[in-house]
Amino acid sequence: RGLGAKDSEPKNILSGFSTSKVLSDSAREKNIFVHGKLADQEAVIILEKTPIREDTLAELLSGSTLKLELKNDIYSTYRLQAPSHLNEIKTTVVCPATEKHVKKYQRQESSLVEETGEDYQSITLPYIQKQSFSVQWVFNILEKKAEADRIVYEDPDPKVGFVLLPDFKWDQKQVDDLYLIAIVHPREIKSLRDLTSEHLPLLQNIFVKGKEAILQRYNLPASKLRVYLHYQPSYYHLHVHFTKLGYEAPGCGVERAHLLADVIQNIQSDSQYYKTRTLYFPLRADDGLLSKFKEAGRL
Amino acid sequence: RGLGAKDSEPKNILSGFSTSKVLSDSAREKNIFVHGKLADQEAVIILEKTPIREDTLAELLSGSTLKLELKNDIYSTYRLQAPSHLNEIKTTVVCPATEKHVKKYQRQESSLVEETGEDYQSITLPYIQKQSFSVQWVFNILEKKAEADRIVYEDPDPKVGFVLLPDFKWDQKQVDDLYLIAIVHPREIKSLRDLTSEHLPLLQNIFVKGKEAILQRYNLPASKLRVYLHYQPSYYHLHVHFTKLGYEAPGCGVERAHLLADVIQNIQSDSQYYKTRTLYFPLRADDGLLSKFKEAGRL
Repeated sequence: RGLGAKDSEPKNILSGFSTSKVLSDSAREKNIFVHGKLADQEAVIILEKTPIREDTLAELLSGSTLKLELKNDIYSTYRLQAPSHLNEIKTTVVCPATEKHVKKYQRQESSLVEETGEDYQSITLPYIQKQSFSVQWVFNILEKKAEADRIVYEDPDPKVGFVLLPDFKWDQKQVDDLYLIAIVHPREIKSLRDLTSEHLPLLQNIFVKGKEAILQRYNLPASKLRVYLHYQPSYYHLHVHFTKLGYEAPGCGVERAHLLADVIQNIQSDSQYYKTRTLYFPLRADDGLLSKFKEAGRL
Repeated sequence: RGLGAKDSEPKNILSGFSTSKVLSDSAREKNIFVHGKLADQEAVIILEKTPIREDTLAELLSGSTLKLELKNDIYSTYRLQAPSHLNEIKTTVVCPATEKHVKKYQRQESSLVEETGEDYQSITLPYIQKQSFSVQWVFNILEKKAEADRIVYEDPDPKVGFVLLPDFKWDQKQVDDLYLIAIVHPREIKSLRDLTSEHLPLLQNIFVKGKEAILQRYNLPASKLRVYLHYQPSYYHLHVHFTKLGYEAPGCGVERAHLLADVIQNIQSDSQYYKTRTLYFPLRADDGLLSKFKEAGRL
């Protein structure tokens, strides 16, 4: 095979990675977030072990090596060494990574912030506008310049349409941790705070067609889904989260998530509900917005 | 080495395991609980992937094979195939396992139920009343017949008073997973569904004095607390949960938890909010109330 063989060998670009710092890790979730350098560029790499799949269980049990750790009565524990193709680690690389990426993945204590409608106008909105976070990657998806092959469903309507695709966190190997995102086609809606009764057709369209598409593609009925928005969101282009009920997806806690069904009901009875209501959400210690709330004496 | 070599080879006893049923699994925690047979005996095996260790990270990154999954802008994802000794799976075997072991590890699927105000009157309320779940243990606490030494704070007022004490789930060893319950002195309020503007003084009293008591006793400010009610609750005598923000307490998900601050605001703007609103909550497959919703054709 000569040179050909060399070309076809997958090159491990991470073998040149040099670690600066572990940003965070979770023994429960079996993941780790690491800041370092990759070929002289700043990079963040995220490793997360993959869920154990029922369909490979027989092969996993028969094809592995077992090392006994301890035995006590009817209980025994082992270390199981599996064939590597049955035991992959999901790896995400952000490169070149900015200071913001590093901060995003750095573990931080959070504080609950109380944001009135006036606080939003005087503190949060100016902060968002000044930051002008790039959502170019969102536009790439909406314009089919990236991830077009990952789209699960699309309604192309510019007013009520959206693109539904798997979240990066989901490896799509099993529905147990199903996680999809609906990104809306309209580009002027930043978050929950912008929603009024004029957006009811959009929200209802996402609710109905998103659930239908998930039933079609994954055979998962609406009664097994948790459908919600984040406030604050991690990017200011309206999007809706679809996760499997029973899967404790990060960010599905009551302090950050708002059920789409509740949002629709609340706007139906008061178009200005999310413009006027005090909203509560956690902000990490290093979040610039938290400093703004502190400066304003709101914390 | 002859026979000796054979003896020293680790025998994989699990290669003879035949699976009857996956009892439960967690995509988030990367574990699976399986019931089956091992050499003609009932057995439960538990597999759980191990946390990613910082001290083996360099070896893991350099010694693995990477398969590119996708690339978009500065983000790329890979499947990483690691040397098996760096990526073990913790394996626990219970053998022979009894019926109790099997039940213990059996997960119940939940379904999201949609309960209108009318559903509450015609399905849920009659079910609660017929069951007449005993809350004697709650009365014992309120009357100091039990757990009196565990009380962290009490306001004895019969209208707006409550008892604050640690939840059983919290071992009180550290505040990281702080979990307290405020149980109200009035006895006629079953749940969120019963709350109207007449209960605002009670709710505000719990909100203010509960947070004060936790600051006093545990030195934890209100901005580190998640204060909420469950619907459905696990017992029908009104109580409020106080947990540490950042601790993912069971039941703090958006599908079951309602922030006390939101409840107060909603009742302030509409006294009948929780009497009339459609509420969503998960019910386990073996929950009697789920059968009632099915019988009524509401699922």
